[in-house]
Amino acid sequence: MQVVFQITSGERDAQLSMLGQLNNLLNYTNERKTRIAIEVVVHGHAWNLLLPGGHPFPEKVSALHGQSVRFLICRNTLNSHQLAADQLLPFVEVVPAAIAHLVERQQAGWAYIRC
Amino acid sequence: MQVVFQITSGERDAQLSMLGQLNNLLNYTNERKTRIAIEVVVHGHAWNLLLPGGHPFPEKVSALHGQSVRFLICRNTLNSHQLAADQLLPFVEVVPAAIAHLVERQQAGWAYIRC
Amino acid sequence: MQVVFQITSGERDAQLSMLGQLNNLLNYTNERKTRIAIEVVVHGHAWNLLLPGGHPFPEKVSALHGQSVRFLICRNTLNSHQLAADQLLPFVEVVPAAIAHLVERQQAGWAYIRC
Repeated sequence: MQVVFQITSGERDAQLSMLGQLNNLLNYTNERKTRIAIEVVVHGHAWNLLLPGGHPFPEKVSALHGQSVRFLICRNTLNSHQLAADQLLPFVEVVPAAIAHLVERQQAGWAYIRC
Repeated sequence: MQVVFQITSGERDAQLSMLGQLNNLLNYTNERKTRIAIEVVVHGHAWNLLLPGGHPFPEKVSALHGQSVRFLICRNTLNSHQLAADQLLPFVEVVPAAIAHLVERQQAGWAYIRC
Repeated sequence: MQVVFQITSGERDAQLSMLGQLNNLLNYTNERKTRIAIEVVVHGHAWNLLLPGGHPFPEKVSALHGQSVRFLICRNTLNSHQLAADQLLPFVEVVPAAIAHLVERQQAGWAYIRC
């Protein structure tokens, strides 16, 4: 299984909901010994999900990364918020354009989940 | 045609909007005598859509079920709201994890509509 | 690349966000000389995006159309708002049912972005 999540919300509830969904999905695949590749594409207001300190959930995000979930941020989002990648959690990867990445993944056969 | 809908909103407007979309889709396929399989995956706050009485729309949901729309709820959602499946409309089916089901359907070629 | 966007929001921020995403996507494909087909399916509250005057963004929408982005509106949305197609921007195309179009595109291999 291969799936790419898209999150744009900066709100706590939406982010917690996605983190819960990721854990539920990993529990499902772990129980069935199913291989899964998961990416989370973060853009728009959701960039605060990837901050290392304080709000919102760096431990939860790091724990998911420890289970091989990849977290990707859009370069356009970094630029429009005057953020540098090194202000974010150290494992965050940068993609040139969030939507382009989501399109490419889907056209390569990945499933898509809009948070 | 094969399509899986995802709804997480407990709000009346979002639910009514989805029910209208399902009817429009069925009208479209009925007029063209196109075969279609439709599933609605309910999780998060949307579980109240599947209650048998009162709010919100049990007659509309039942009518859609009568036209072969399947309504699925996530076991994680049941657990987190301390709900039993037999408190819901009798035709509701339970899936172990909403997101896993959505991923599996898409990877089997189904289209995906996020409500 | 082939991608269909879905927008249902009548809110300024959601519409601006989508228009920015479309521009970012076109920049990405132009830089890489990648061919792309883009459609935007407008329904629900989002119909005001396609009005020729005043709110919200007719110049931005027209500029995107000039870069080959197609804008489609749902006939059910026109009917429910008592709108005629000739009240909208002149290049807007009408599809019989928004969701049916989104399903058909995905089943023909197009990617899907939910705004």
